[in-house]
Amino acid sequence: MTDPAAPAADTRPYSPGLEGVVAGETSLSHIDGAAGRLLYRGYPIGELVRAGSYAAVAELLWSGEWRPDATLPCLPVPGTVMAALRALPTTARPMDALRTAVSAWGAVTDPSFPPTPDQARALTAFSPSALAAFARIRRGLEPVAPDPDLDLVAGYLYQINGERPDAATARALDAYFIVGAEHGFNASTFTARVITSTRSDIASAVAGAIGAMKGPLHGGAPSEVVEQIHEVGTPERAEVWVREALASGTRLMGFGHRVYRAYDPRAAALREVAESMEHRPEWLELAIAVEDVALRVLGEKYPDRPLKTNVEFYAAPVLMGVGLTPDLFPATFALARHAGWTAHAIEQGAANRLIRPDVRYVGAAERSLPGA
Amino acid sequence: MTDPAAPAADTRPYSPGLEGVVAGETSLSHIDGAAGRLLYRGYPIGELVRAGSYAAVAELLWSGEWRPDATLPCLPVPGTVMAALRALPTTARPMDALRTAVSAWGAVTDPSFPPTPDQARALTAFSPSALAAFARIRRGLEPVAPDPDLDLVAGYLYQINGERPDAATARALDAYFIVGAEHGFNASTFTARVITSTRSDIASAVAGAIGAMKGPLHGGAPSEVVEQIHEVGTPERAEVWVREALASGTRLMGFGHRVYRAYDPRAAALREVAESMEHRPEWLELAIAVEDVALRVLGEKYPDRPLKTNVEFYAAPVLMGVGLTPDLFPATFALARHAGWTAHAIEQGAANRLIRPDVRYVGAAERSLPGA
Repeated sequence: MTDPAAPAADTRPYSPGLEGVVAGETSLSHIDGAAGRLLYRGYPIGELVRAGSYAAVAELLWSGEWRPDATLPCLPVPGTVMAALRALPTTARPMDALRTAVSAWGAVTDPSFPPTPDQARALTAFSPSALAAFARIRRGLEPVAPDPDLDLVAGYLYQINGERPDAATARALDAYFIVGAEHGFNASTFTARVITSTRSDIASAVAGAIGAMKGPLHGGAPSEVVEQIHEVGTPERAEVWVREALASGTRLMGFGHRVYRAYDPRAAALREVAESMEHRPEWLELAIAVEDVALRVLGEKYPDRPLKTNVEFYAAPVLMGVGLTPDLFPATFALARHAGWTAHAIEQGAANRLIRPDVRYVGAAERSLPGA
Repeated sequence: MTDPAAPAADTRPYSPGLEGVVAGETSLSHIDGAAGRLLYRGYPIGELVRAGSYAAVAELLWSGEWRPDATLPCLPVPGTVMAALRALPTTARPMDALRTAVSAWGAVTDPSFPPTPDQARALTAFSPSALAAFARIRRGLEPVAPDPDLDLVAGYLYQINGERPDAATARALDAYFIVGAEHGFNASTFTARVITSTRSDIASAVAGAIGAMKGPLHGGAPSEVVEQIHEVGTPERAEVWVREALASGTRLMGFGHRVYRAYDPRAAALREVAESMEHRPEWLELAIAVEDVALRVLGEKYPDRPLKTNVEFYAAPVLMGVGLTPDLFPATFALARHAGWTAHAIEQGAANRLIRPDVRYVGAAERSLPGA
């Protein structure tokens, strides 16, 4: 194009938001929205939740090997990073604190290109400690050093609360971490791959990904599900509440999904864990009751629409059930996605090509400055 | 696609690296590589360097208005961010320090979506102070508070050196900042737009962009030009050195460009500023001599190749000439690009659509876990 006055001459295909454009190849996960299936390296997400731990799933994503006995204890926060966390205002958003901590971790550790499984392990095991430290600091409490005997998810709860979680609580959050670990080329993962494609480092990639996940179009608004379940109040009120909500045009949060037309396999896996708990937290009890009613009433009212439960519906009660406050939900989701982000950074770095799309110019024609 | 065992069924077009794929529209800049033209909002880069300042060019990018008298003094570093910078190891890379500072700035200021010109001004005027502070801290010196009477580029040099630069030095670096301010959908700018597209904030976008620019495939390796010019030593040796280098197969750094087939208009603008200086720093004197010889010899040797001077060739001697050390070059480039990154964040946010490409699955077919 030699004449910017005529942008119409740019006839290359343009797909806003890159919808339907294949931007890369991956061996990490496969999403089949029509059938409601999600596979990590070929294994169905439901099987992974039943048989594995987050540490085993993360190792699977990083190395391709299934080692069900893998462990990944949280790592201590370097003193320099802790100083940065202590300096932040206590009102800072946890996502901003986590992004800053990961960036500072990169400044301290200076990871080289290409990203490696060792770097992925180190960063994934660092971030829960950093977020937990900030969660305590902002409440005026001292951070708790990680317990090397606890696996990553139990160790995260331990560093937030100062006491070891019971097995069922740790198991419920571990299931959440597994279903949140990886999900194709969403905006944050794509960000991590673009950053890695310049031969930049894994901390730059994950700090960028956290920034992308912070946006509500990607990270969602999990507190909305919480508020809704809170409004229902008791399982007995679920039927009346759902019918009244739909009659008054209120949108039910946690149903329907851009990709999944069938039941979201991540929601199914989380419900299975919830149902198997001997003593279910009240939040999960309520969520199960609301879901049963909502699916029945939505099916009556909109028989032709694929309004099935999505992962956010169960994410919220699981996170509430294990004792996290809603303002920690997005950053906890980001902790879970570390396995996927870092696996994508490894995959991108191993067969790298700079990601650099074109742009269509639609601005002013060439002109001179006034007075020039 | 219902059978992940048969990824060949995925017949959507795939362009590795998104080469030739239009990923968005912009009114900010137009690059005409064949003719060697670069326009910001329609104005040729050469005119902007001649008539404007970085502050005026940044305002042009943010608001679309040409206000040649615009000023943008550096802003002070918030105490919380300064504490984070003081905590970093003195060996940290300046790009890592700048990325961390921008992330911490976001945690402190909590900028809302959509990005605004006021946010862009505040962030662009913060970052030079943060980088200059780190540049002093790592040398064991106290940071210098910004001088509100100095415009951004002079204020950056002041905060590094503790004394006001002379007018010619400030002018040379200002020209570098103008030509580095914006350049279409490179990997860092695209990163900023992907992050913004989730409705995330301007600090997340710029922190991610810094991470992308850190990679040598994007931010380059400016110290290589420095080493080369250093090897030449004196203008008189240029002819012999260039001929010997080409005869021995050494690649001349700073010549040839992926997009520009003609003389890079940014290099032309920087040379013009260099030539107009009454007392040229030795580095610029040498660079001009090397360029003259190199273009002549390259033209003799490869008459059919478009091996013209690129912007990196002059960036290095300008940055050395104003007294910056090579390890500050990438982060100084990032400071200059703040105007473009933040303008793209504003443009993306004003007509937003989530950027979420597809990915092609090339991994294992569905399988069960061993023992499941």
